[in-house]
Amino acid sequence: MPFNASTLPTLLADLRAAVGEAHVLQGGDLSAYERDWRKRWHGRAFAVVRPGSTAEVAAVLRACAGHGVAVVPQGGNTGLVGGSVPDDTGTQVLLNLGRMNRVRAIDVANLTMTVEAGCVLQAAQEAAEAAGLLLPLSLAAEGSCTIGGNLSTNAGGTQVLRYGNARELCLGLEVVTPHGEVWEGLSGLRKDNTGYDLRHLYIGSEGTLGVITAAVMRLHPQPAASMTALAVCESVDQCVALLQLAQARAAASLTGFEVMSDFALSLVRKHFPQIPQPLPPSPWTVLLEISDAESADHARTIFEGLLEAALEAGVITDAAVASSVAQSRSMWHLRESISMAQAEEGLNIKHDIALPVSRIPTFVASTDAALEQAFPGARLVNFGHLGDGNLHYNVQVPVGGSAANFLAQHEHAVNALVYDAVQAHGGSISAEHGIGALKREELARRKSPVALSLMRAIKRALDPGLRMNPGRMLDPGDPTATVP
Amino acid sequence: MPFNASTLPTLLADLRAAVGEAHVLQGGDLSAYERDWRKRWHGRAFAVVRPGSTAEVAAVLRACAGHGVAVVPQGGNTGLVGGSVPDDTGTQVLLNLGRMNRVRAIDVANLTMTVEAGCVLQAAQEAAEAAGLLLPLSLAAEGSCTIGGNLSTNAGGTQVLRYGNARELCLGLEVVTPHGEVWEGLSGLRKDNTGYDLRHLYIGSEGTLGVITAAVMRLHPQPAASMTALAVCESVDQCVALLQLAQARAAASLTGFEVMSDFALSLVRKHFPQIPQPLPPSPWTVLLEISDAESADHARTIFEGLLEAALEAGVITDAAVASSVAQSRSMWHLRESISMAQAEEGLNIKHDIALPVSRIPTFVASTDAALEQAFPGARLVNFGHLGDGNLHYNVQVPVGGSAANFLAQHEHAVNALVYDAVQAHGGSISAEHGIGALKREELARRKSPVALSLMRAIKRALDPGLRMNPGRMLDPGDPTATVP
Repeated sequence: MPFNASTLPTLLADLRAAVGEAHVLQGGDLSAYERDWRKRWHGRAFAVVRPGSTAEVAAVLRACAGHGVAVVPQGGNTGLVGGSVPDDTGTQVLLNLGRMNRVRAIDVANLTMTVEAGCVLQAAQEAAEAAGLLLPLSLAAEGSCTIGGNLSTNAGGTQVLRYGNARELCLGLEVVTPHGEVWEGLSGLRKDNTGYDLRHLYIGSEGTLGVITAAVMRLHPQPAASMTALAVCESVDQCVALLQLAQARAAASLTGFEVMSDFALSLVRKHFPQIPQPLPPSPWTVLLEISDAESADHARTIFEGLLEAALEAGVITDAAVASSVAQSRSMWHLRESISMAQAEEGLNIKHDIALPVSRIPTFVASTDAALEQAFPGARLVNFGHLGDGNLHYNVQVPVGGSAANFLAQHEHAVNALVYDAVQAHGGSISAEHGIGALKREELARRKSPVALSLMRAIKRALDPGLRMNPGRMLDPGDPTATVP
Repeated sequence: MPFNASTLPTLLADLRAAVGEAHVLQGGDLSAYERDWRKRWHGRAFAVVRPGSTAEVAAVLRACAGHGVAVVPQGGNTGLVGGSVPDDTGTQVLLNLGRMNRVRAIDVANLTMTVEAGCVLQAAQEAAEAAGLLLPLSLAAEGSCTIGGNLSTNAGGTQVLRYGNARELCLGLEVVTPHGEVWEGLSGLRKDNTGYDLRHLYIGSEGTLGVITAAVMRLHPQPAASMTALAVCESVDQCVALLQLAQARAAASLTGFEVMSDFALSLVRKHFPQIPQPLPPSPWTVLLEISDAESADHARTIFEGLLEAALEAGVITDAAVASSVAQSRSMWHLRESISMAQAEEGLNIKHDIALPVSRIPTFVASTDAALEQAFPGARLVNFGHLGDGNLHYNVQVPVGGSAANFLAQHEHAVNALVYDAVQAHGGSISAEHGIGALKREELARRKSPVALSLMRAIKRALDPGLRMNPGRMLDPGDPTATVP
């Protein structure tokens, strides 16, 4: 049924019947639901609806389908691309999954947990830990982001190198379709070749095809010990050489490989002088983490062998292995303080890019130079998950002058320069944050026309009313079109 | 354009123009292309077309689209479910990818290789090895199956426990659509959140949505040493307990965990007495493999610690660690001889099922008993990749009487009993072999109606002419239908 404003009062009654009056919010301050975490988007929902079960989600979606009303699914609302808040028309239903937060089951022998979409990531991590196991998805927002949001956006984080993205950690899904049908795909199977892989289609689709209500996540045995080290390199080439050496010697024990440019660390020294930086300033500092199945002693032996070999090969010039859990934590704290130090320093333009690891040295050299030439004084804050080819290649505005003016004048041109370079090197303009509202137009410009037309055909097939999170990720194009 | 037999002569001219006259085969003995490996299906193609490049594949698909003709893509033609041969109408174009067999590139620093669909798996393995790296996809057909077929069917094999299925080893694809458009998705990225994951949709779709022409595969460092051990358990429960212990102690070093029932091994003793069986007969024998990044000594130390702990815990009753590469190979040879010994013993009914690992003991106990009651004398040949929850739960016909009669009378009922039990335990009727022609009707019966309707909507969206490998995997339903 097409949208018709005159039926909205009956929609309200339908929504209340679906989830109970107490869980349909209208009026008052709903900014926790209507405004995104970065405070860049502030919409207005027809109502905020908070179902408590899969059946209630299905009832809500049937009601919305009956009224031709759009639905915006929302988890912890911690996304960075404006994908989980309504537009400002006041006609969209904001479907918040927060009440569906149970861990339904943990299967120790199968190494899986079944968890509802609204479960906060950290709560899921803790439930796994209580069962003696590890849910190896970890990111800055873990205290408030939810499993459903993690899967809808295919979250990355700090352990992708070893365990994969959220996508690789998911074995099965429960999904409610735009028409309110429930796909029961909560399989805990590691092998299942029975048709198209619907799971991977919903993962990363940012709520534009349906609503993830629960998932089966892979768990891993907990490592006996985790240990961290810092090493310094003279160049990005050397960082890549160190990565290769570490992958060969530590194999799957290597769970972290993060790079930090000297300028990035200099901002931490300037704004957080109390955070220890154990090694002298150098063009590049690498944080390595080993998670060992045997013991802390064994992890140390691997680190010592690796770092000695790297020193001998001239790949690093200095290194420090953490001698305690506290020192390991302090090294991670240094890495995680870069974003905050950047914020203290002032306005900046963020990029979340991925490249083939082998192309990173050339990309960095040529793009650094091009930015410096085009925007004299602009300062590169380069750091990220080198092991995954994922850089947060951020641009801090020049010292002096108005930062806001610089942004207003140059943000678009800076993005164009960086994204052109990313494309030329076979990279991605969104490694782990997704598209949402922020990069929708960029995606339409830069993704291949064939890929866009395939994606649009899928969107129109699974959401023919184009009501699921409209305006996010993809312009679905002409609803009557077929693939070329 | 709908199919019209009168245009077939011009189709032939179009195909010859697309790939050259020498690569369009018509007439003569084409059974290598038209008959499947198990010799259960023998079709007849309009022509066998062997393109040499992606552009030629696109030209072939445009020609077929122009004539409304169906296309059956084929790699090494080693599939077990009849998915890669034409039907017997003589109107389908058999598109064999064998000439597209190049390794296009190996990127050592990025740990990836770009390889064409027709490249034989073993050739790809060898190219990776020559670059000092490992392509960890390994299965019995590796000497003749191709990368394109491996990806179209999401092949499994013996190293899934550590490295995943073919799906998890693929980072990017090049695909030609049914209309002859080329999707250039040959990304070597480990993170890329820019829209729906088309890659995972084509992987495992058995040629029903388009033609995979090339792929970027993940490589891994080669382990310093691989070592194998055998251990014997009194029950399936103990096998599962041993798996848990091995995963906790060896973590990602554990690359193989195969179980073999005593009856399975007794067939090897009977038909291949020359193959050593180092441990005395026991209800269950487990083959474990460790691939170690450090050394053979370290692998041995892990094995000794693990097996000692398992003995102490009463999980195993005896064990033998291979003392040489030759002994390791001999243990694998024992495992791989089961299928052959089964064939020597006579006719049997094969099942390729997956279950949550935790459900396997109950499944085996109850299904063994139900089969014995329903089909007295039928003998269970149970073995497989327990680490992945994947059993080849085969049924050997009773001794005495006509085997062919038993099959004719009972095959359907045996399958129904086994698949009912699989479903009741949350399992899959096809773990690694796929659906093809063999299990298409079974899939339609057993997959949830919502999943089927989603799959059909995707099929109709991406192949609106329903011309890609028709009759395989999925009945696409009414072409004008939309999702419910």
